[in-house]
Amino acid sequence: MYNAKAYSAASATAPLTSDTIERRDLTETDVQIEILFCGICHSDLHAVRNEWSNTAYPIVPGHEIVGRVTQVGSAVTKFKSGDLVGVGCMVDSDHTCPHCRANFEQFCPNVIFTYNSPDKHLGGMTYGGYSDSVVVDERFVLRVPSNLKLAGVAPLLCAGITTYSPLRHWGVSEGNKVGVVGLGGLGHMGVKFAHAFGAHVVVFTTSPDKKEDALRLGADEVVVSRNTDEMQKHAGSFDFILDTVSAQHDINAYLNLLRPDGHVTLVGAPEMPLEVAAFSLIMGRHTLGGSNIGGIAETQEMLDFCGEHNITADVEVIPIQKVNEAYDRLLKSDVKYRFSIDMASLKSE
Amino acid sequence: MYNAKAYSAASATAPLTSDTIERRDLTETDVQIEILFCGICHSDLHAVRNEWSNTAYPIVPGHEIVGRVTQVGSAVTKFKSGDLVGVGCMVDSDHTCPHCRANFEQFCPNVIFTYNSPDKHLGGMTYGGYSDSVVVDERFVLRVPSNLKLAGVAPLLCAGITTYSPLRHWGVSEGNKVGVVGLGGLGHMGVKFAHAFGAHVVVFTTSPDKKEDALRLGADEVVVSRNTDEMQKHAGSFDFILDTVSAQHDINAYLNLLRPDGHVTLVGAPEMPLEVAAFSLIMGRHTLGGSNIGGIAETQEMLDFCGEHNITADVEVIPIQKVNEAYDRLLKSDVKYRFSIDMASLKSE
Repeated sequence: MYNAKAYSAASATAPLTSDTIERRDLTETDVQIEILFCGICHSDLHAVRNEWSNTAYPIVPGHEIVGRVTQVGSAVTKFKSGDLVGVGCMVDSDHTCPHCRANFEQFCPNVIFTYNSPDKHLGGMTYGGYSDSVVVDERFVLRVPSNLKLAGVAPLLCAGITTYSPLRHWGVSEGNKVGVVGLGGLGHMGVKFAHAFGAHVVVFTTSPDKKEDALRLGADEVVVSRNTDEMQKHAGSFDFILDTVSAQHDINAYLNLLRPDGHVTLVGAPEMPLEVAAFSLIMGRHTLGGSNIGGIAETQEMLDFCGEHNITADVEVIPIQKVNEAYDRLLKSDVKYRFSIDMASLKSE
Repeated sequence: MYNAKAYSAASATAPLTSDTIERRDLTETDVQIEILFCGICHSDLHAVRNEWSNTAYPIVPGHEIVGRVTQVGSAVTKFKSGDLVGVGCMVDSDHTCPHCRANFEQFCPNVIFTYNSPDKHLGGMTYGGYSDSVVVDERFVLRVPSNLKLAGVAPLLCAGITTYSPLRHWGVSEGNKVGVVGLGGLGHMGVKFAHAFGAHVVVFTTSPDKKEDALRLGADEVVVSRNTDEMQKHAGSFDFILDTVSAQHDINAYLNLLRPDGHVTLVGAPEMPLEVAAFSLIMGRHTLGGSNIGGIAETQEMLDFCGEHNITADVEVIPIQKVNEAYDRLLKSDVKYRFSIDMASLKSE
């Protein structure tokens, strides 16, 4: 074991503060990573404040990790010291279930998440990326293309794969008309990917002042979703809609924009149930689904794609000392489009 | 034009009574059919009582028609006098849109339904199958296998295709675990088809006394859906669930029974929106969809399949004079499993 610096919260009402945590010594298959940047995901805030009622304290959040390899175990074959690497939402799984064997570790019943999951090495719970160092089994470590700005790479590990995966799964490609509902951390990545896949991209937003930015990010059209006439013009025309909104909203308004056999995927998770009219699904054989991150192989594919197409998240880089303030701003959607913590700032703690 | 006998309703609150209606003279591509049996679909009741607020009166319902060809137009190639035929929910479409060209006439923006749709030949609205005769374009007439009992064939034209189509679309086959929610007109056909496709079929019902019948129809297991423990045993295990219930019910209970990438299709249409928890979809990449009848080619495929596998609906045959009583019983689910009107009874009117 060795000590690492981190920011942790001691309770649902406590702020994140400087802390010292233990990290395990490397096993044969482990990679030790110096964390350079860690993105702030809305899930971090939910977990820190125990909004899903399953948080064990203290908690060190963070699952959008990018850094540099500092040491590898004796059996590690994929990485060497100095490599640029990433770690996302998962750090282990059982490797034997049908889902793991099919490269869907996210469906594994024994998946271990990067934070707030049982830590089989040290006991207690896993600690996430708001830290200067982490030790992860090489099977859950990703290669990061060298041409990308690292601060903007960090959010790819969650916001990136969460939007890339459903767009790929539903076959979004050239000639498709694709909607992206909401232009936040997830939505802005959805726009970039859908555009890169060659789709005609329409952004739905409640904020008319986001129009210019949406076009800059790759949208072909922007629809203000409160404008019923504007919505109606697109009735029955979408192949696929990615809904990234976690606030309560009318999902039928989007289901009715689908062409026959069109699909809506939810990646935002509204707290209250969505009210779905059966006719919105029955007419035109529409489907409504959800998606949650992606497997490790697909996450690597996404990072490689980002390297080839020079795609990163638009980030506001902050020092770790501003993390509580960033959480408050996150609640007001006051960020374009993701906070990325520069972990060098932890050195002064 | 010629006169046909029929049963019609004059208003949302009037009973169905004996009437005389006009049918068109045959065009070159028309087929004249002597109607032998017509199934009673719950949609008939919705339409007669204007529960979808779009009914024009008088209305002659009925879209589960089976009969014998009495005359054909000069250009008709598929049928000759004496053939056994069926007509379902549609009698025309524009034949030119992408959906028609892809054999999905049910998605055609200009589809003409068998009743309560604009009649381009005679003006007014189309009249359905509670009648002794009908004239239909040959493209919407189906061949009926000669080995099947005709009273039980009639419901195949709506209840049959409505359940066959989504089971086929979602690839239900041997090795799949398939749920059927509700054991009524639609549900009992879903069980027969899923069983015939080789799936392991589990029926969900609120009525424990339906167990024996469900097993007789082809179910491998029966789960009383109000029994939470029994439901929980099946968590995460279903490939596909066909939900035929049009009463309000908890859809999340079924979404949570799906394995990753599993799917629920609604074919019942509850009046009020369904409350869908986002996590029920996001976890395991589940999808919830709907389905509405099927195209003409697929309806023919279904009838041929029924001929090969000797599948018909379980029906209670009634004379037309009992139709209002049958509607009352339908509301109490007091039928095993579909009413089929013997149209010979219309001769005495």
